[in-house]
Formats: sequence, structure tokens, C-alpha cells
Amino acid sequence: MDLNADLGEGFGIWRLGDDEALLSLVTSANVACGFHGGDPSTMRRVCEDAARRGVAVGAQVGYRDLAGFGRRHIAYDFAELRDEVTYQLGALNAFCRLFGTRVRYLKPHGALYHATSTDESQAAAVVAAVTGYDPELPVLCLPGSTLAQLAVGAGLPVVAEAFADRAYLPNGALVPRGTAGAVISDPEQVAERAVRMAVERVVVAVDGTVIPCSVDSICVHGDTPGAVSAAELVRATLIDAGVSLAPFA
Amino acid sequence: MDLNADLGEGFGIWRLGDDEALLSLVTSANVACGFHGGDPSTMRRVCEDAARRGVAVGAQVGYRDLAGFGRRHIAYDFAELRDEVTYQLGALNAFCRLFGTRVRYLKPHGALYHATSTDESQAAAVVAAVTGYDPELPVLCLPGSTLAQLAVGAGLPVVAEAFADRAYLPNGALVPRGTAGAVISDPEQVAERAVRMAVERVVVAVDGTVIPCSVDSICVHGDTPGAVSAAELVRATLIDAGVSLAPFA
Amino acid sequence: MDLNADLGEGFGIWRLGDDEALLSLVTSANVACGFHGGDPSTMRRVCEDAARRGVAVGAQVGYRDLAGFGRRHIAYDFAELRDEVTYQLGALNAFCRLFGTRVRYLKPHGALYHATSTDESQAAAVVAAVTGYDPELPVLCLPGSTLAQLAVGAGLPVVAEAFADRAYLPNGALVPRGTAGAVISDPEQVAERAVRMAVERVVVAVDGTVIPCSVDSICVHGDTPGAVSAAELVRATLIDAGVSLAPFA
Amino acid sequence: MDLNADLGEGFGIWRLGDDEALLSLVTSANVACGFHGGDPSTMRRVCEDAARRGVAVGAQVGYRDLAGFGRRHIAYDFAELRDEVTYQLGALNAFCRLFGTRVRYLKPHGALYHATSTDESQAAAVVAAVTGYDPELPVLCLPGSTLAQLAVGAGLPVVAEAFADRAYLPNGALVPRGTAGAVISDPEQVAERAVRMAVERVVVAVDGTVIPCSVDSICVHGDTPGAVSAAELVRATLIDAGVSLAPFA
Repeated sequence: MDLNADLGEGFGIWRLGDDEALLSLVTSANVACGFHGGDPSTMRRVCEDAARRGVAVGAQVGYRDLAGFGRRHIAYDFAELRDEVTYQLGALNAFCRLFGTRVRYLKPHGALYHATSTDESQAAAVVAAVTGYDPELPVLCLPGSTLAQLAVGAGLPVVAEAFADRAYLPNGALVPRGTAGAVISDPEQVAERAVRMAVERVVVAVDGTVIPCSVDSICVHGDTPGAVSAAELVRATLIDAGVSLAPFA
Repeated sequence: MDLNADLGEGFGIWRLGDDEALLSLVTSANVACGFHGGDPSTMRRVCEDAARRGVAVGAQVGYRDLAGFGRRHIAYDFAELRDEVTYQLGALNAFCRLFGTRVRYLKPHGALYHATSTDESQAAAVVAAVTGYDPELPVLCLPGSTLAQLAVGAGLPVVAEAFADRAYLPNGALVPRGTAGAVISDPEQVAERAVRMAVERVVVAVDGTVIPCSVDSICVHGDTPGAVSAAELVRATLIDAGVSLAPFA
Repeated sequence: MDLNADLGEGFGIWRLGDDEALLSLVTSANVACGFHGGDPSTMRRVCEDAARRGVAVGAQVGYRDLAGFGRRHIAYDFAELRDEVTYQLGALNAFCRLFGTRVRYLKPHGALYHATSTDESQAAAVVAAVTGYDPELPVLCLPGSTLAQLAVGAGLPVVAEAFADRAYLPNGALVPRGTAGAVISDPEQVAERAVRMAVERVVVAVDGTVIPCSVDSICVHGDTPGAVSAAELVRATLIDAGVSLAPFA
Repeated sequence: MDLNADLGEGFGIWRLGDDEALLSLVTSANVACGFHGGDPSTMRRVCEDAARRGVAVGAQVGYRDLAGFGRRHIAYDFAELRDEVTYQLGALNAFCRLFGTRVRYLKPHGALYHATSTDESQAAAVVAAVTGYDPELPVLCLPGSTLAQLAVGAGLPVVAEAFADRAYLPNGALVPRGTAGAVISDPEQVAERAVRMAVERVVVAVDGTVIPCSVDSICVHGDTPGAVSAAELVRATLIDAGVSLAPFA
């Protein structure tokens, strides 16, 4: 099983999350590429540290929106979005090259993640950017999303991820943020869910139904108080349960 | 002889210069990378057109200063500048890849061009970015500049350029902009100077001295009224004089 | 009757439209405030020229999106949008103060104009910004829009505008851009429509129906080829028809 | 005596310093205006809180450089800098208006603070912006600086400030950052120096000389670990020493 987290999301003087601590816990780092967060020196630092630790680096591409941290939907044209994704992929890859590696996958950030779950045009723009850049580059995304479907259709490897700290509906979708109980804050419960995802390949939905959850990566969050210790517990509990952790890429 | 010009310097809705016309005249295109000008869709369009025409694409890297078009000196730290140059190199290269090519050289833009002519730290930052990214990537710059010296010292190929439309001092330096006569506006005179640069490898300084001018590329400007027709005349006159035009890279 | 146009929409080195020419034609200038276009020196220059000519200055507020020129819908939170509008109002007013005047009205730009026509939250954010800043500041907008309704409800003066170069549906709405015939390009026809709007207070819809068009301002465009000469013809034709032109504010 | 601190220097999702805590300690808040840091919603929140507490709001104007937090020198033209300062003044004032107050003074930030200490053109640009905007607006700056001299010459009120946590040379200048001992980190020593500044109007220079220090405001820092508790000690110690704290403005 792979553990992924968002990293390198500071900008200039401003920090967000504890990149160093997370890099010691995850197997895949979704590195911000400068459009919603991240700056060149942060990208370099995270890529260097990731290469040293054997953590796979993925391009966490986002909308061009520092003020909104890429969390506001923007109605991009197909070509503009495709080209901004291409740009971000190339920029991050330059830092990977410095440390003898390369971008190993792509994962959309924030509002782009949500948009590409359902919006054909935006999902197609991301797929077009990836196929143009490297037709063997995996896309890390929500199983069943529009992005997953279009990526499969384009012949790209698709890696499904689950969220150990998010509640699921019986149909396998996430309970929307803002709904009561959408986010699970008890670290032990989060860790236990991660183990069932990894070992039994199931998750318990909000109504108690046990539903299939066949994923290759589990996402942990790093930008909230207590995030690092929660991620530590997820990692330790998975290892205790005999799950072997390694990058999917 | 190589002819280079700055291209792709619009941003979003705003255009600057006539990229299409210049691409039919030059052999090397210094493509803006989004920091002082340029946006991803423009970068893609220019890279596609350049690849189709056999024009070599170079990274025209600049300060992060859209409002000032990269023309204001910024006192960057070594590491910040190195990393911003790396970022720009990678971003542009992604678009070259789409069309089966790659970034073939680097040329600094505006205030960074001027700063790296004399400032050790900024010149070293550019050299560090290039050597980290690709130790065989040529740097296009002013002969005798600090950048040229440090690049040679780092084992990078250095390509010297001259400006057919700029007046020279007897010591080989450019007459500073703002000084009367610094820019030569008569297209026929510019074209004639280009021919002497290419054929005799000399230029006539402001005091009438004929000084050596041993360069591999001649820069033409594209962002002023009449620029394209002046570049056309330079090209035609060089060809008439039997100079063969081809990318240095 | 008032004639309004968008002005000051360049940014840094990049120009858009002919501000000087338009300022000699219109009675109200919608001045970009730096978020979708416009920069402080441009704002100052336009405010100075407008004050000298007796042209009223309005705040043409937009999304924070230079790369997209404010033409892409962004899903702002209410408070973020309200505060960005407040910021833009204040910034522009500082330049008006320099020349003994002040911001005389507000008009949203691009995607914000479209969003506030129908989106309650975004329209309410603009209204909240205006009422907080100056509860007597007029809002220039589409008659019948959500923005118009909420502004009236908040006690703000609302000034309705029409577009002489846009086709209308029989219900009074604009034919959407992208539809054939949405934009009328024949300057004489545009000028004639402006006269009927001003004199008879009607416009002929696409199906030939003559519908009421009771507005206090007519918008002319300045950023397309031929825009200035079209605006000149609108102005001259209105004056010939005995329409007196003056700022509504 | 007045106590001032930099506030509102976060941007979007990113925070810097503890604005709420500092607002309970200082009498003047230097509020970032969005160019080096600060965003509209932060500006509004700080202005509201400051108005409620009777803290005077000053415009902490900076270079347009979010990536460098306004700490890198930029070689602005006079007019561009003047106009960017005007813009920032107006933007902040709009938020003050919402809470029944106004911008009460200006203080330059970071590299602009340093530049205006010695650079005639940049100091003159700030002075021109202030005199154009409000010829009675005080400028808070280093005594003896070029900015102080030009502001006095332009008839602006000048308020001198001292830094309780910075070492001074015998000539009254600050020991440059980077020099050993430039910053005094012991909170008790900082508080004691603040008291001598306020009561005896002197400061002890690095060589032990007691030099005059006739200032109307003492600056405390808020963006380093322990900053808030250090500021609390300065405030408490001043009050214990019978110093009455109030905004200078």
C-alpha cells in the first residue's frame, strides 16, 4: 500500500504543514507546483528530501490562484487548463532531475480535484496534459471519477486513492465536506479505517454498510493541527497489521 | 550565423510583438517562461510553431515581475534566483517535449541580463541552475560578461551575441541605453552592421574605431514599431551577403 | 444620455485599447482597478485625464485573475469577494482624490458582471462592498439583473445600461456571446441602435420585435479593432440626433 | 509613547504572526496592504479589530513582491513606486472607512524601509504619494533617514521610531542585521531598553556609549517565535515605569 500526502504548500515566507515530518511518513509526496501554493525553493527542498528518502514525487497541480489556495472553482477553458498543467509538470520535473529522479505521477489539487471528478472538459484537459507530457505517467485520483474514466480511456495508468479520515456514502462517494461527520477526527478510528482499506479492501459507510474500497493509495492530510501525529498513527498501525508500505509508482 | 529574438512575451489577453512574423525570420527564439512575461498557452503556441519551422527554442528566463516586465533589478538571494531559473527551464521544456524537441539554450531577460553581466552572485545562480539542469546546455550572453566567464568556468558552452541595432564603445561594451545614439534606428544601417558582424566579424564603435566582434548570434528586437520589417531587412541583407543562417544550437 | 466604456485595462508594459481616444468620446470611464487588468500608473493616468475632461470615473471591479483577464468565473466566498471589491474601490478612489474627484460609480467586469446578473451570493457581495464603502454610490449594471435587484433593495442608486452593439432577445436579455449575430459589427447599425435607445427608449430584438429599453447609459467597447471609430460614430450620431451627452453620476 | 508593530501580514490561507494578540498590546498597527503580504479579508479583519480597540491603523506599504515578502530591493522608477504607494494607501483606507476611521499614518515595509532610508528617488516617491493623498498624513520612519528629511521638507509630519530589540552604533544608526549582536533576543533586556528610550530618551550603543534617542514610537516585532510574549513584557514594563501608552496619531 502507498501513503500519499500534500507537501510543499508554503509560499515564500509563509509555511503550511510540516514537510519534513510528513516526508518521513509517506511513500508518495504530492508536491505543489507554484500555482495554488509552492515556490521554486520549496519545490527543490522537498524534491531533494524525497529523493534521499525514496519517497515518490507527484505533481500536485492546481489552479492559478494563490489568494484562494486553489480551492475556488475556476471556469477554465480546456486549452488554458491543459497548458497550465503542462507547465506545472515541467517545472516540478526540473527539480526532480536535479536529484536523479523525475515526476512519477500527477494528482490534482483542491478545486481542480473536485472539478475533474465530474467535469468532462477539465478532466479532459488534465488527461491531455499528461498524455502529451508522458503517456505512461500515472494519475492519482478518486475511483469512478470522470478523471479516472477519461485517463483510462486515454491509456494512462490510473491509481485509485481513498481517504482514511473521510466518511463514505453507501454508494462509495465521499460525504460532502460541510455535512456533519464528513471528516473523522479521531486518529485511532482513522488508523483503523486505513487498516481495513489496506487489508480487507473495504470501508464502513456512514449507514454501517461495509463497501468495497479497492485502492492503491491512502491519502493522509498534513495541514491541520495534529495532522502529523495522526499520520504517524496511520503508518504505525498499518505496519503493525503487516501492511507493507511502498510507493505505487 | 544565428539570428535570435525575444518571443512569447505576451501575457493572457495582452500581446507584445508579432511572434508569428519573427518566427519566420529568426533561427533561435528566446521564449519567455512566465515570470516576466509569457503564459503557458503562449509558450505552447510558440514552441509548436518553432518546432515546425526548425527554429531552436531557448529559455528566456527573467525575474518574477510581471508588473515590471522583468526590467527592474531585484536583489535576489543566490538560492532563490537559482531555483526560479530551474523552474522556468523545466516549465518551458515541457512544451518543447510536446513537439519532439527540448530547450536548446538559455538567455537571461531584461534586468537579469544586465545583472548577470556584472553581478557575481546572480551570474553564479544562473550558472548553477543550468549546470544542475543540463551541464551541456549553452548560455547565450554578452561576450566578456561575468555570466560568460562563470559559465565557461563551469564547463558550459557559451554563445556570444551581438546587437546589430546598438552602438558600441571602443572597448567593446554597449553604449548605455539613455545615452544619445545608443540605439540605431535606421534599418539599413542596422542591416549593414549585421553583415559586417557576420562576414568581417567586426563592428564600428561610436568613435569610428573598427573593433572585433566575434559572435555566434545576432540579436534582433521584436517589440518596437517597425521591428519586424527591420528584422526582415537584416535577414535579407545577410542572405544576400552570402551568410548562411542556422541555429547555433 | 451617458456613454460608458472600459478603460485602463492594460497592465505594466502591455496595453489594451486606446484610453486617450476613448476618453475624448465617453462621459463615464469604467476604470480597471488592478485585479483583472490595470496597474497603479495606468489608473493614475486615466483618472487625471478623466478629471481634466469632466469624464466621470467608475470602479470597474473584477476577479483577481490577470491571467484570465477576469473573464473566467471564479467561485468566490461571499466575504472574500466583498473584501476584494472594497479593496479595489479604495485603491481607485486614491487616484481620483489626487485630481480633486472621487469614484462616482461601480460596474463589475467580465465574469463578475455575468455572475452578478444571476448569482445571489456574488451580487450580494458586491452590494455589501458598495453599501459599506458609500451607501450613495450608484451601481451600473444590466436592468433586471440580480445585482440590480439587490442594489435597489439595499437602497443603492441603480443605473441601467444597454449595449448598442449587442443583439437582444424579445424578453430583453442579451443574445449570448457565441451565438450567431450576438454582436453587431456594422458601426452604422450600432450608431442607429444607440439613437433609438436614447431617443425612443427602445431596441429592436432579433425577431424584429420593438422592445422597451429604458436605460441611463449606453456601453461602447474599446478593445477591438475599429472600436474607437465605431464609438466616434455612436457619439456623433447621438449628438446629431439632438441627444445631450453627460455623465449620469 | 506609542508602540507599533507589523500586522496583517498573512496572505490567503497562510498566516504570519498573531494579529489578535499583538492588537491587544500595541497602540499603532502597521497593516500590510496586499503587495508584500496582506489580503483584503485580513485587512478588513485587522481594521475592524483595531478600530474596536482604539489602535491607530497605519499603511505598511511595500514592494509588489509576495514571493519575496517585500524584503528584496527592487529598482523601481519614481512614478511606478509613487503610484503603487498611492494604490496601497487607498485600498487600506477603504477598510478603515468601514469602521468609522481612516489611515492615520504610513510606514514603509522591509526593503522599501531600507531603501527609503538612503535612496533619494524611492524616498521622494513615498513622499510624493503621501503629499498627494493627504498632506497631513504622518510618516513613521527612522530618524535622520532620507525619507525623514524629504518628508519634513515636504511639510509632512514625521514620527521617529526606535527598535528596542536592535543594537545601535554610537552614531545612532542600527547595527546591520547579519552582524553579531544586531538583534537583542533577551526579552528583559529589550524591555529595559524600551523603558530608557521612553523615560530617559536614550539608548546604550554597542560600545557602551549612552546616546540620545528621541522618538515618538517604539517598534516591536511580531513574526518570530516568542515575539508576542516579548511584546507583552515591553508593554508591561513600560506601564510599570509610569509610561503612558497611546497612539501618536
